[in-house]
Parts: sequence; C-alpha cells; structure tokens
Amino acid sequence: MGGVATVGSAAGVSKGSATRLFGMSDTQSASTEDAQEDGPHSGDYDPRASSLRGEVEQAVMDELLAVRGSIDNIDATLVYLLAERFKATQRVGHLKAVHRLPAGDPGREAAQIDRLRRLAEDAQLDPAFAEKFLNFIISEVIRHHEAISRSHAAKDA
Amino acid sequence: MGGVATVGSAAGVSKGSATRLFGMSDTQSASTEDAQEDGPHSGDYDPRASSLRGEVEQAVMDELLAVRGSIDNIDATLVYLLAERFKATQRVGHLKAVHRLPAGDPGREAAQIDRLRRLAEDAQLDPAFAEKFLNFIISEVIRHHEAISRSHAAKDA
Repeated sequence: MGGVATVGSAAGVSKGSATRLFGMSDTQSASTEDAQEDGPHSGDYDPRASSLRGEVEQAVMDELLAVRGSIDNIDATLVYLLAERFKATQRVGHLKAVHRLPAGDPGREAAQIDRLRRLAEDAQLDPAFAEKFLNFIISEVIRHHEAISRSHAAKDA
Repeated sequence: MGGVATVGSAAGVSKGSATRLFGMSDTQSASTEDAQEDGPHSGDYDPRASSLRGEVEQAVMDELLAVRGSIDNIDATLVYLLAERFKATQRVGHLKAVHRLPAGDPGREAAQIDRLRRLAEDAQLDPAFAEKFLNFIISEVIRHHEAISRSHAAKDA
C-alpha cells in the first residue's frame, strides 16, 4: 500500500478533517484506487464511489460526500436494527408454527400501520411512505413465517 | 373510562408486570375496548390488537404480545431513523438540483449495495433482503430528487 492512506479507512482516521481527506487531489485518489485494486483491502467500501466524478466541482462533491457519510452511518444502523427486528419476528414465526396459527394477522397489521403513520407525522416523514415501508417489511416477515411453518409441517410428517 | 386502565397506556405503567397487564381477563379486555371506542383515547394504539384472539391460549398470546412490544419499539426507531435519512437525502437532492446533476448515481448505488450486503452478513440479516431494502429506499429517494429537480426547473422558468 506504500504511504497511501486507503480511502476505505478514512472514517477511522482522527487527524485531519473529513473534508481534507475526501478532498484529495485527483492524482492521490487515482493512486488510492490502484492500491485498493491490488491491495488486501480490495473489498473495502469506497465512500467516494460516484458516477458524478469529473462532472461536478470539488466543493460541491465535498459537500455531497459529507452528507453521504451521514447516510452511510444511518444505513448501517438500519441494517443492524432490521436484523434485530427479524430476530423478533422469527420468534413470533416459531410460536405461530408450533401453535398452528396463521402466518399473517390482519388485525395487528392494521393497528401497526395506523400507529406508524402517526409516528411518521411526528417525525416529518411521509406517512404514505411509512405505510409502504411497513407493508414491505411485513410481506417479507409473512414469507419467513410461511417457510418456518412449512419446515415445521415437514418435521411432523 | 371509569376505573379501567386503558391498554394504550400500558407501556407507561410501572407497577405490575407487562404479562399481568396484557393478561387481563376477557371481560376486562372487552370493557377496555368499549372504553377506547367511546373515550378520548379512541385514536390510541392498541398493542393487543390481533385477529388471533380467542383462537389461541392465553400463555401463548402473552408471549406473542411480549415479542410484539419489542417489534413496536424497533418500528418506532426505524421510523425516526428513516425520517433522518430522508432529511439527508433532501439535502443531496437540493445540491443536485442547484448544480443540475442527475437524480440517480449508479456508481454510488453499486458501492452502497455491496457494503450493505456485507454489513447484513455481519448482522445475520439476509443480504438479498438488505439489497432489496436499499433498492426500495433508493427508488423513493430518486422520486424525491426528481420532484425537487422539477420544482427547481419551474422556479427557473
């Protein structure tokens, strides 16, 4: 890797501002990319990845990258939170399979949607999007529950 | 409301276990429902809402409700986190509109998907679901960016 700091480790570097790190010259970023392709960190995330590079002035790109850094942190949190949610719904799925209850629960789902729409308003999130989001998650959960139920039925057979 | 504790406020009650609160007799829960329909809290969330009631023994229902309480807390966190994410992408949308950049950024999106799949593996979440989730969010974001871009173009016209 020579003396070139990898971009993927930028978040862990405490000295120097993020702007300075993200605002490396084109020569620097080019050699960093070479190092990433050849080096042991070739699978590392590149927070500078963009199809806009070259089309936009550096100051704008820097601001874009700063906001994207926050989005990346939020996305990591979302992934870990969703993982925790599915752990909980797997428990529900097993309960339902053992007691032969249906995979879906329309009464529960209607109450959840109403509640999330109200929370979304409080958070200034589009309530229609919150509803779409919950339906997206619930359809995945029901798919899981049906799979658990099938594997249970197979064990009983 | 008489002397009947509303179910909607159960989460805020510190005395008595959740199981005891959730495990009210059918008579009690029936009168609670009546009170909710007539009372000032008729819009309140009912964490006991379910189409399974009556079909399942009380001990199972209690365990189901306990897990659902955790799911409800996770969902509230997800809503507030998503609201924060859309605040960040609105900033990106304005930057893109002002500098007339395209709404989508395929290079960025590919890098995000790779990263989230790896985070999902670490969190024991299905990486295919993490990818589907990010695509779901990104398509909403692009819809927002296009709307911002249109309103910008209208202002310029």
